[in-house]
Amino acid sequence: MPAITPRTLSGFMELLPGPQQQMERFLNTLRETYALYGFTPLDTPLVESAEILLAKGGGETEKQIYRFSKGDADLALRFDLTVPLAKYVAMHAGELAFPFRRFQIGKVYRGERAQRGRFREFYQADIDVIGDGKLDIANEAEIPAVIYSTFTRLGLERFQIRVNNRKILNGFYAMQGLAEQSGEIMRTVDKLDKIGPEKVRGLLVEDAQLTEAQADEILKFIAIRGTNAQVLEALEGYADRNELFDLGLEELKAVTKYLAAFGVPETHFAVDLTIARGLDYYTGTVYETLMLDHPEIGSICSGGRYDNLAEYYTDRQLPGVGISIGATRLFYVLQEQKMLNEALNTAPAEVLILPMTQDLTAAAEAATFLRAAGIRTQLYTEQKKFKAKMGYADKLGIPFVAFLGEDEIAQGKISLKNMQSGEQQLLSLEEAVRLVQEDLRVRDNGKLILG
Amino acid sequence: MPAITPRTLSGFMELLPGPQQQMERFLNTLRETYALYGFTPLDTPLVESAEILLAKGGGETEKQIYRFSKGDADLALRFDLTVPLAKYVAMHAGELAFPFRRFQIGKVYRGERAQRGRFREFYQADIDVIGDGKLDIANEAEIPAVIYSTFTRLGLERFQIRVNNRKILNGFYAMQGLAEQSGEIMRTVDKLDKIGPEKVRGLLVEDAQLTEAQADEILKFIAIRGTNAQVLEALEGYADRNELFDLGLEELKAVTKYLAAFGVPETHFAVDLTIARGLDYYTGTVYETLMLDHPEIGSICSGGRYDNLAEYYTDRQLPGVGISIGATRLFYVLQEQKMLNEALNTAPAEVLILPMTQDLTAAAEAATFLRAAGIRTQLYTEQKKFKAKMGYADKLGIPFVAFLGEDEIAQGKISLKNMQSGEQQLLSLEEAVRLVQEDLRVRDNGKLILG
Repeated sequence: MPAITPRTLSGFMELLPGPQQQMERFLNTLRETYALYGFTPLDTPLVESAEILLAKGGGETEKQIYRFSKGDADLALRFDLTVPLAKYVAMHAGELAFPFRRFQIGKVYRGERAQRGRFREFYQADIDVIGDGKLDIANEAEIPAVIYSTFTRLGLERFQIRVNNRKILNGFYAMQGLAEQSGEIMRTVDKLDKIGPEKVRGLLVEDAQLTEAQADEILKFIAIRGTNAQVLEALEGYADRNELFDLGLEELKAVTKYLAAFGVPETHFAVDLTIARGLDYYTGTVYETLMLDHPEIGSICSGGRYDNLAEYYTDRQLPGVGISIGATRLFYVLQEQKMLNEALNTAPAEVLILPMTQDLTAAAEAATFLRAAGIRTQLYTEQKKFKAKMGYADKLGIPFVAFLGEDEIAQGKISLKNMQSGEQQLLSLEEAVRLVQEDLRVRDNGKLILG
Repeated sequence: MPAITPRTLSGFMELLPGPQQQMERFLNTLRETYALYGFTPLDTPLVESAEILLAKGGGETEKQIYRFSKGDADLALRFDLTVPLAKYVAMHAGELAFPFRRFQIGKVYRGERAQRGRFREFYQADIDVIGDGKLDIANEAEIPAVIYSTFTRLGLERFQIRVNNRKILNGFYAMQGLAEQSGEIMRTVDKLDKIGPEKVRGLLVEDAQLTEAQADEILKFIAIRGTNAQVLEALEGYADRNELFDLGLEELKAVTKYLAAFGVPETHFAVDLTIARGLDYYTGTVYETLMLDHPEIGSICSGGRYDNLAEYYTDRQLPGVGISIGATRLFYVLQEQKMLNEALNTAPAEVLILPMTQDLTAAAEAATFLRAAGIRTQLYTEQKKFKAKMGYADKLGIPFVAFLGEDEIAQGKISLKNMQSGEQQLLSLEEAVRLVQEDLRVRDNGKLILG
């Protein structure tokens, strides 16, 4: 009897080989797209000094963090990629060129209560642009292009990037004499989708102690809808009353101005005054991204502008803008919604060579030839019945099987069978390479996400 | 004053952007090569139940492991990729197709004493082939091909794969009536390179209590040298005296027989009877790989055949063969030895667009065009002096700078400057794409490792 029942911790994603191949494709698309926009990859440790990670301190983080000691060291697993970035930039500021554009795709850890679709170990896929002292608004305008490209390259079509500016919100509340209550108001307004405008109004008056007139003003403001041009025009009606508001409006106009130049169609972008993002370090543009057919999932890519990345580690003012994709959760959702393209090859090889002779020399040579041509090839090595060998190819979903018996060896050829069409051809290795490469071009043309 | 001095834990590699780009290239080459041989990627959690990871138990592992609790759970960071593989295969045996070929490249954790070039967090890059009940020797013959391809694709030339078979060693010791002492003898013989044959002989007689005749026999045996054919011929002289030895010799002959067919030249492969590998779970072929100009570094890729991967988790007999590259340490060594190709582009982009106008529309459009053509492009957004902008491109080592002023915009062109040659041309965007792509083909042609 084995001593221990093998198990994987709850909340830790561990995929079978087929889905793992899809996950690899998913993460590679993120990597490639981020790189295309001039972000450089970083890889920081998963373990850091607890003092570093908890510099900011505070509620949920402290409760959820995996913290432990080794010898004298008080250590913890990172719970996001932002704090390690802040540490990195503060440490290496002298060696980096600013604006510093980095992406990082890595696992982070949060000991949340385990439940379906919630992960304790999950990939975040972040990009950030960090300025030294200041950072031009153009960077905030470019972010929607990265989001649009990323999801489009993945194959997602029905999504929308929603953008707002915290300066507009804070400026507007200040106009109403509500600067102090802005946090509470934002949290209440955030419930709009769930509870509707009447209940929001009730909470604003009863809990937040606003006057009826103030509550009405707020409801009127967040009810502003329309095309980007219409929303911006409506916002102009509030101009010249508060400096912060005016600055935010200028920024929002700059962000929308460059959309087309950056290749983002109007259909996939909306100014939305109800977007606030909870985190208090956002100071300007904020982003959310919704799957239009699955609003219940919430934002699949969020972020925003902040003014001070690394205040706990350096006196240097490091403003930035960044976004994050919760990649493990998004992948899980796509799986659940059956939105992953099953037609893509998830087999470990394009070709499985099945030797029909005792001696494997010719089969090994054929494998070597195909591999040198860049074709992922497996040599089946076991002495099994023909049916078992074919069952192996089937189970793995390998697109091509190459038979190599006495006849083929005598002719210096292989019999290549297309497992999907059933078609079998006697081919030279050069011909086989061309055929498989042609098939791959078609097969790999598909995108990972359907819809 | 900032509250905390930013720092990274000792023994945890954290690279600057340039070296990180090299590291990415390094790991990507491993991934691509492993995939070419029909291995499927896996990604298992970094955190596992301590009970799972420590099932085998024992000395160094227990001392070095990062172990901690969260709530009631007794957890630990994985210290290798083999134990998580054993767990995975035992858990999912019913869903996998055997032979199961997987690669995994991931970080592992060992709380070793910190010293230069020793890492507590490091990448291992493993491949394994797992059989269900049995596994053909051909798999052991294919492994040197994977090793050869991997290092050759990286650019390493002066290396040698050294192979032995534990059955030959154990069979030989059994012939001498020394089956019981084989472990101690192997550990003594392992010191041959360091202390020389005379001292090994002394230890065998004094510490291991061998007779003079037995010690002489062992020294004679491990002194066998020559081409693979010569070594195999010398081994034939010991045949027909011990079954295990004969089986090992058959296996070694099978492994060497297929070398050429698998594309491994004789120059990069040697049967070496002094190779034993310390770990007691190896039962057949064992591999080491030496950098010929840096033998002091030790083996850069090792592994072997084992008969029972997952005995602690399942009754199923799961024999396998695998190898592992300690990727973080190897990368560190290559850096130290100045063996990394500095000519390869480590910049975050191929092209930096420098707008010379206030309005960025044309510059953003140019960036969008280049990116759509697959060229990594950064738009410089800050309002700085020309010299500062050029200094930025220089510091990052970006190969091309594209100037976009009133003149260029009027003509629908860009001025593209090759930062290496200094040559500057007024080009359409289509022409610029072709020129940059052509340059990339030459630039990316180089391999990561020199020599």
